[in-house]
Amino acid sequence: MNGADLLCETLLANGIDTCFANPGTSEMHFVAALDRQPRMRCVLGLFEGVVTGAADGYARMADRPAATLLHLGPGLANGLANMHNARRARTPMVNVVGDHATYHLALDAPLTSDIESLARPMSHWVGRAQTAADLGPRTSEAIAAARAGAGGISTLILPADAAWTDTDAAIPAPVAAPSLTAPDPAQVRAAGQALAGGASVTILATGLALREAPLALLDRIAQKTGARIMAQQANGRMQRGAGRVAMDRVPYVVDQAVATFAATETVILVGAKAPVGFFAYPGKPGSMLPETCRVIPLAGPDDDLVAAVEALADETGARALPQARVSARAAPELPQGALTPDAIAISLAQLMPDNAIVCDESVSSGRDFFRTTHGAAPHDFLQLTGGAIGAGIPMTTGAAIACPDRKVIGLQADGSGMYTVQGLWTQARERLDVVTIVFANRRYQILHGELANVGAGQPGENARRMLDLDDPALDWVGIARGMGVEAARADTVAAFHDILRGALAGRGPFLIEAVL
Amino acid sequence: MNGADLLCETLLANGIDTCFANPGTSEMHFVAALDRQPRMRCVLGLFEGVVTGAADGYARMADRPAATLLHLGPGLANGLANMHNARRARTPMVNVVGDHATYHLALDAPLTSDIESLARPMSHWVGRAQTAADLGPRTSEAIAAARAGAGGISTLILPADAAWTDTDAAIPAPVAAPSLTAPDPAQVRAAGQALAGGASVTILATGLALREAPLALLDRIAQKTGARIMAQQANGRMQRGAGRVAMDRVPYVVDQAVATFAATETVILVGAKAPVGFFAYPGKPGSMLPETCRVIPLAGPDDDLVAAVEALADETGARALPQARVSARAAPELPQGALTPDAIAISLAQLMPDNAIVCDESVSSGRDFFRTTHGAAPHDFLQLTGGAIGAGIPMTTGAAIACPDRKVIGLQADGSGMYTVQGLWTQARERLDVVTIVFANRRYQILHGELANVGAGQPGENARRMLDLDDPALDWVGIARGMGVEAARADTVAAFHDILRGALAGRGPFLIEAVL
Repeated sequence: MNGADLLCETLLANGIDTCFANPGTSEMHFVAALDRQPRMRCVLGLFEGVVTGAADGYARMADRPAATLLHLGPGLANGLANMHNARRARTPMVNVVGDHATYHLALDAPLTSDIESLARPMSHWVGRAQTAADLGPRTSEAIAAARAGAGGISTLILPADAAWTDTDAAIPAPVAAPSLTAPDPAQVRAAGQALAGGASVTILATGLALREAPLALLDRIAQKTGARIMAQQANGRMQRGAGRVAMDRVPYVVDQAVATFAATETVILVGAKAPVGFFAYPGKPGSMLPETCRVIPLAGPDDDLVAAVEALADETGARALPQARVSARAAPELPQGALTPDAIAISLAQLMPDNAIVCDESVSSGRDFFRTTHGAAPHDFLQLTGGAIGAGIPMTTGAAIACPDRKVIGLQADGSGMYTVQGLWTQARERLDVVTIVFANRRYQILHGELANVGAGQPGENARRMLDLDDPALDWVGIARGMGVEAARADTVAAFHDILRGALAGRGPFLIEAVL
Repeated sequence: MNGADLLCETLLANGIDTCFANPGTSEMHFVAALDRQPRMRCVLGLFEGVVTGAADGYARMADRPAATLLHLGPGLANGLANMHNARRARTPMVNVVGDHATYHLALDAPLTSDIESLARPMSHWVGRAQTAADLGPRTSEAIAAARAGAGGISTLILPADAAWTDTDAAIPAPVAAPSLTAPDPAQVRAAGQALAGGASVTILATGLALREAPLALLDRIAQKTGARIMAQQANGRMQRGAGRVAMDRVPYVVDQAVATFAATETVILVGAKAPVGFFAYPGKPGSMLPETCRVIPLAGPDDDLVAAVEALADETGARALPQARVSARAAPELPQGALTPDAIAISLAQLMPDNAIVCDESVSSGRDFFRTTHGAAPHDFLQLTGGAIGAGIPMTTGAAIACPDRKVIGLQADGSGMYTVQGLWTQARERLDVVTIVFANRRYQILHGELANVGAGQPGENARRMLDLDDPALDWVGIARGMGVEAARADTVAAFHDILRGALAGRGPFLIEAVL
């Protein structure tokens, strides 16, 4: 056994059996080790943003980390944007980044770079093996850090000589299951008192508190106390649809978010962050809460959020309530005519199968998706959590690997989709059951709005050429087919609805270019 | 005028009039400033790797930096791999990376990250403006650093409030032209003595020493002294073809490189690095030179390389020689049958027009290109300098923007091409005169070789699925057309030759899928 084998076996001993990869020469001994171990499923991405984004989508649905395999500093750099999104989602992830042999670094060969400096901003844990025997304990540390709290990004640097050197070091015992911090009774009491005090209270939740059971408890707390419950603006995963509690999210647009909290006197945080503006704007506040608003951190992001909700239900007596108010199965009527984002949401509300996984990188086009789909079939909803576009196609890819028996639906803005369009090929290669809906408005629509906010007036030549994706328009059907994914185009509601019905009835990857 | 205007005007005052961009909300005031200033040419890339790679190709051909515009940490991260290549090529580049407003950073909004930590490994200079008035001097510093020595990567962080705040600060005077360090007379004498001493000497050159005139001088030194002249393994730009001196490069493969220098007693470096292995391999040396080889650093990478060559020519009396030995216009005869990398090189040697720009990211497929094309029409040859794949399509894009009257030819491996395939759209948008030849061997061919070197035997299921790009094969014609680039496929020599002839005769972007 060499160091690469030890790394592979340590991952497997901890239940990490999926490796999203784009290897290079310095990782060839690890590739050989993976090749000796068929229990590890290796999934190739044709660009590292696909690799890390797929690992994010996988872990959000599997509730356990995948490994990634990346090639030196530049390979890691290519994967950083989706590691950033995963870090914001608190997704567990174990990245293995190959590096030159330890003694080769001093020669400053062309691919040498400061991997630690690149990794740190997007990682919760960064470590480097020095020897083959090191790889047992270092891999265990990486796994422990990935599983700590709500989940973390671990980046383990693997020098080529640590991988290729033989070792008789034993495979370490599996890392102990993480224990989450129980809710602080003082905070539970404080929250309970605030809820009993007649003030206008909003309970803001994220993470595991957005699964079906704690959501039902949160609703009973709301029924009992009159509080409002709401999810963070962006969340790694949320369970919603018919039979589940309908939660709204904090709006993205600053003015709307400020208005949402204008009358709020107390906010109770269940893993969530107190809401701030996604961006700063001249003359607008950074915090979305009124200055006098009291903030009670019932549970931090790394605490046991489900236990915190249960404790608050006990504290408020909400457990005694018979049931949560859940959405009935319902969908609006389909309009006719030209295709709109709203019509796409309605079509989905009507057709989405039970237990679909919806990955949302629709950016501006999907902002009204929620209100239309509270009564859709029950589904998981995964969001762009860190604002680094290019998450969507990889996330659907990873989610489909984690849940091969569920239909995955990608709501994909066209500008963002082009960032990691290579992910479509992985969907074809792995025969993944993903339907990608591209909202083809042929522009960075969100930026047109932002430019108007700047007071720049009508965009001139330079601005238009930086914000529009026309001239030429992207032919998404051609691009998808070029990567082996069947595709069709729709520009009317009727055509879209027909194509979507067919795509959902079939199996395997399909892309719909929804021309808006 | 606001800070963004001041930044834009300072760039223009220094002759930086091209900005490769992919902006976001935090850069909207800079976009508005660019929109007010039509002298700045803004070129959109649909992914930041396209943006930085195009800036690299542009500056290699224009001999002056372009600006880039990137969106916060993740946008920078997406551009880092091609910044890495540019750093290794010593390409001048001024990156402008937007950040949140200074006061917004403490709120840790979703897109917040440690931009400095990300930028440093791939930058020679990293700076941050704090105020609008700051932007004059900070931009000047960035430009000076980009122009220093052989060229450097500058990364200027632009907080949104520094951009949007009004300022009456003056536009700084243009940065003084850089002065390069003259050659050290002691090193010139040492090199001259070594050349006169009868030892086996290799002069190893890179950078500006690889332009036509210093190459001719180097050859006269070789004629006079019997020394061998050679270029570094990877170089930012090299002038070659008929009427120019034929230079070989240090081989990529370790065993070949070691053999190349086995009998070398002295190496004289003209801006080049003493050759080391691109990667480390068990039991193989890191340095490609014999242990006893003497290394004379005639000129460091930041010194005046042309003056160093001239000084050595004077020192050795080589100026007295009548002329350099240059390649005659010649091309091998075209073979028949199935298409091979060698046949592609011959076809190019026959058809390439005068003053073409050849950007080489053919990886394993292009290793024999040189020997076939010494007698091709004179051309500039640009390489993947840092080993971070995904440079090719962006580099051709930027080179074509810099030199609109020259034909640009991309030698593009298929695996690498997928990394930044979005660059094809920018070629279509800007009507660039680029012919991209995709070497479609449908695998990471180089890694198959490396896996064999590891002694892993025949690849099994996991290795094969990480190293092969088949199942499904990429349809490059469909992908290119989907982005607005005309394309055709060839799998015979005759078909390829016909398609290439047509593509070179036309204008505008064209892609040839060369099925190998």
